[in-house]
Amino acid sequence: MDNFTFFNPTKIEFGTGTEQLIGQHLAEHGIRKVLLCYGSDRIKRDGLFAVVSKSLAVHDIQFVECGGIVSNPVLSKVREAIGLARGSKVEAILSVGGGSVLDSAKAIAAGVRHDGDVWDLFIGKAVIEAALPVFDILTLAATGSEMNNGAVVTNEATREKFAISSVHTYPKVSIVNPALMKTVSRDYLVYSAADIIAHSIEGYFTAAVQPRFHSRLVEAIINTVIETTETLLVNPDDYAARAEFAWASTQALNGLIYAGTSGYSYPNHMIEHSLSALFNVPHGAGLSVVIPAWMKWYHGRNPAQFERFAKNVFGVTGAEQGIAALESWFNKIGTPTRLSQLGITEAELPATIENVLGNAEYFGVADIYTRDVVATILKGAL
Amino acid sequence: MDNFTFFNPTKIEFGTGTEQLIGQHLAEHGIRKVLLCYGSDRIKRDGLFAVVSKSLAVHDIQFVECGGIVSNPVLSKVREAIGLARGSKVEAILSVGGGSVLDSAKAIAAGVRHDGDVWDLFIGKAVIEAALPVFDILTLAATGSEMNNGAVVTNEATREKFAISSVHTYPKVSIVNPALMKTVSRDYLVYSAADIIAHSIEGYFTAAVQPRFHSRLVEAIINTVIETTETLLVNPDDYAARAEFAWASTQALNGLIYAGTSGYSYPNHMIEHSLSALFNVPHGAGLSVVIPAWMKWYHGRNPAQFERFAKNVFGVTGAEQGIAALESWFNKIGTPTRLSQLGITEAELPATIENVLGNAEYFGVADIYTRDVVATILKGAL
Repeated sequence: MDNFTFFNPTKIEFGTGTEQLIGQHLAEHGIRKVLLCYGSDRIKRDGLFAVVSKSLAVHDIQFVECGGIVSNPVLSKVREAIGLARGSKVEAILSVGGGSVLDSAKAIAAGVRHDGDVWDLFIGKAVIEAALPVFDILTLAATGSEMNNGAVVTNEATREKFAISSVHTYPKVSIVNPALMKTVSRDYLVYSAADIIAHSIEGYFTAAVQPRFHSRLVEAIINTVIETTETLLVNPDDYAARAEFAWASTQALNGLIYAGTSGYSYPNHMIEHSLSALFNVPHGAGLSVVIPAWMKWYHGRNPAQFERFAKNVFGVTGAEQGIAALESWFNKIGTPTRLSQLGITEAELPATIENVLGNAEYFGVADIYTRDVVATILKGAL
Repeated sequence: MDNFTFFNPTKIEFGTGTEQLIGQHLAEHGIRKVLLCYGSDRIKRDGLFAVVSKSLAVHDIQFVECGGIVSNPVLSKVREAIGLARGSKVEAILSVGGGSVLDSAKAIAAGVRHDGDVWDLFIGKAVIEAALPVFDILTLAATGSEMNNGAVVTNEATREKFAISSVHTYPKVSIVNPALMKTVSRDYLVYSAADIIAHSIEGYFTAAVQPRFHSRLVEAIINTVIETTETLLVNPDDYAARAEFAWASTQALNGLIYAGTSGYSYPNHMIEHSLSALFNVPHGAGLSVVIPAWMKWYHGRNPAQFERFAKNVFGVTGAEQGIAALESWFNKIGTPTRLSQLGITEAELPATIENVLGNAEYFGVADIYTRDVVATILKGAL
């Protein structure tokens, strides 16, 4: 196991009704005014906005609304929100939504405390020295953003989907009420499953140092996601399954399964970010297309781990059988496994490859993911 | 899954050479003077004390020594150390040792900031309102104390082995260098394995709400402990195994496997605490005696989970076969499974039962663990 520092100061408030505690948590941190970030007006129709407003009012906390944050959140919106946050002198950012809203909230929080342009923090031109405190109420379990310090935003002008992370961008308190997630659409449920599995397998397959304990934790997460997804597709109201799905999602990207591993990369995310940046496909849908194609290209580099995956996740023998089982499972739950299902044709491969190569530089894996390799993987996904 | 709050602010600094970072971590917290707690003089002979002293000196941090903390740490020593800490105006407690030293450090830290007698905090006569910051360098992996807020201390006068926990008693920074643990004796290695397994199974078997995800995590921990213990018994210098053993130990009692479970109790610890309090047996050795006897008495209350354990840990079918497999494994690695191996005879059962009944009140399970039940379990361990 490699040396590591593990530090995750986010407080998770998990369970039914916990969204009513948001005002109390903000008050405990001395917050008097927040920027309330959200996506669509769905939270106004379904009553969540009213619950949040009431909880804030009880604790005399003012808020300024910043709605309209979209999936694959965009830099222009983050910049606009930074101006709003500064102008209204908010003391914290409150995200009410899924990973896109929360990632935007983190970027806004860091951007408010940075003198230059916020994109500088994404491209390494500047370092995050401080951030407003971030709080969130999670309405979709997938990205793990509720218990980590990362945020991914797309620069629409340059078609770059890049990330920040900093000790300053851990949420102070994340409220996770699985009951709020029962209205997530069937499509987004299965995309989320693919996203959680992607978070779990990137290190599992690519790490140079991957302790068996960590592999066991990853398999616990993946097996839970597979089991609970199947339950939820039959019965979206199954709270126990919704809760296990959500908590497995949190554990997949809160540092636990990566602490002590090393030499890993995020190739599936690297490739998918190009699909999202260029074609605005849902992140999880892009991942379920990329993963089987990437696995077919990669497995010979780590055959023992792929055989382990096949056995411990799907109960089959052999690396290729395991990959086929995962692809079949993606098909079964109805998340895409082909670029054509995303509306991406062969004619669009050259531009896609070009974008992936830019990501490969950004992810520091350009030596492995050459033009030929990226082309091979993407063609395999046609 | 039940509602829960998860918050664990301890920073773990894990790996080789990390003990050299202690001065830096203390300095980052603005600490200028610490009470340096340790057990035997072994740390002076093996060079660790010199490394720590040097790291403190580099950062101009003074220290006052408090050595001689024993296994099953005692209240009298904690009281003495509180006086020393107050008299020398230390700003933090630094534990260099295993769980006994660290638990004492937490009790000292809370005791210094409490106006009355520190034992009041253990028996519910007073609440921990504050504590000095605690830092530690761990030299034995077993108790999980490095990433939780609990501490267990024995009152020699009353023969009570009781616990505290508080949001104020999480270590600020825990330094875990598995290489420091390679000198742990064979006996203490196997006692530690039993302790980690005990932490893992208490909730696994007794919780009324036990999600499958949590059961999977527990099995990942136990399977890792079994595998790495066997490796270390053959080759104590196997760093990779030592590291996985240590990290599994941390995960067994840092809140992860209990978050969202409910209705659980700690019957094995409850019974073992009496063995430690009365006969000063090593905690892990007491646990490996209690566990099989308790399991034989208990398994009918939760047959499905015992069958699951048998299958997923030992690959056997049936609850009783799983229990037998664990008892065999304890015998194989050389940790005791009978009271006689601890030098405890039938003549001592009445006093032991009496002490356990006191613990049952303290643990809130006196309705289940009646005199007859405790007698049955202990007789089964003769």
